Amino acid sequence: MKFENYFPIWNQLTADQKNRTQKGLITRKVEKGTLIHNGNMDCTGLLLVKSGQLRAYILSDEGREITIYRLFDRDMCLFSASCMMRSIQFDVTIEAEKDTEFWIIPTEIYKSIMEESAPVANYTNELMAARFSDVMWLIEQIMWKSLDKRVASFLLEESSIEESDKLKLTHEAIANHLGTHREVITRMLRYFQSEGMVKLSRGTVTILNKEKLEHLQNV
Amino acid sequence: MKFENYFPIWNQLTADQKNRTQKGLITRKVEKGTLIHNGNMDCTGLLLVKSGQLRAYILSDEGREITIYRLFDRDMCLFSASCMMRSIQFDVTIEAEKDTEFWIIPTEIYKSIMEESAPVANYTNELMAARFSDVMWLIEQIMWKSLDKRVASFLLEESSIEESDKLKLTHEAIANHLGTHREVITRMLRYFQSEGMVKLSRGTVTILNKEKLEHLQNV
Repeated sequence: MKFENYFPIWNQLTADQKNRTQKGLITRKVEKGTLIHNGNMDCTGLLLVKSGQLRAYILSDEGREITIYRLFDRDMCLFSASCMMRSIQFDVTIEAEKDTEFWIIPTEIYKSIMEESAPVANYTNELMAARFSDVMWLIEQIMWKSLDKRVASFLLEESSIEESDKLKLTHEAIANHLGTHREVITRMLRYFQSEGMVKLSRGTVTILNKEKLEHLQNV
Repeated sequence: MKFENYFPIWNQLTADQKNRTQKGLITRKVEKGTLIHNGNMDCTGLLLVKSGQLRAYILSDEGREITIYRLFDRDMCLFSASCMMRSIQFDVTIEAEKDTEFWIIPTEIYKSIMEESAPVANYTNELMAARFSDVMWLIEQIMWKSLDKRVASFLLEESSIEESDKLKLTHEAIANHLGTHREVITRMLRYFQSEGMVKLSRGTVTILNKEKLEHLQNV
């Protein structure tokens, strides 16, 4: 499958814009765990995921993390090209959560096309609005949901992504997704285990009772 | 002062677009405390503030609030027209924090111009990116800053907006800005008072020692 099949507004580009995009495109393949973009590095460019999974997160001064969104096949990442817009005044870090193949559209090329093309600018607007919705959802979670519900939701989400009840996840990794400390997650998972919802073993959380987790999430 | 002096890309509209905008414009003047838009109401339209102050916040199911951004003279609000973009999947409530004059650009008119105009679409992108930056800042505050620092920052911000050290603010109002409970704010302000940073009286917080508050904020 080619780039044009993944980029939803390809047909709305002019011949010249298609040409400029094709010429600038970079293809990359990275292993799970690779840091693709971090706030302090140069403006990487826009990322379009061909296959795999990326995680965008922010870091505190003390090194704490919280996931702000995840990207899957066909998703596009704007904030790895934050220099594209003067009003983007925050930094995200992006790492591969699985082996991932993606294209990079260099910032300058995308920016110049966006400035002249209403369809590209409107597409960019929709992308940003989708991420904005993710982040607003996150604020609601942090503000109004207790941590037990957030952990339950996260385990159910992971299980749905992995299509498995056996999740290879350290307590540290869960803490980094949810913006809390490992010790807090360990305590919560032990409570889940005592309630028969999960079974814990080294580096693995196995979901035993999905209904009970769903109930907890929705109470 | 006319609308065209407040709308920064007026000169980039075509004659027809200017005409459609002018014809649709609604001018409104509301008193402090007026609810201008709430998530469940219809798609109000884009708001451009002529003078005054608006607050955008979200509400929990239990009625708790947290301020996500504020708008001042010449600021434009997109999310009161959230039906404009399919990817905006959250609701904000907007109320006047002071007597406020503003224009409403009806959603359909703005949307149709944005779809055909690269400058308008790019301007909208910058607006959304600016709000996105506000919200990312908020997440960092909620996640990594303790409440004493957030209260100190809020009092200093208010003092700067009002150009006064005497702030007419109930503890309830501060709690609603910061997404916490009134009792928590009361306890914190009493601590600030015992440290000589503020003086409390009915409905008023007076800043006595700005340097100490700034120090607390930055520690």
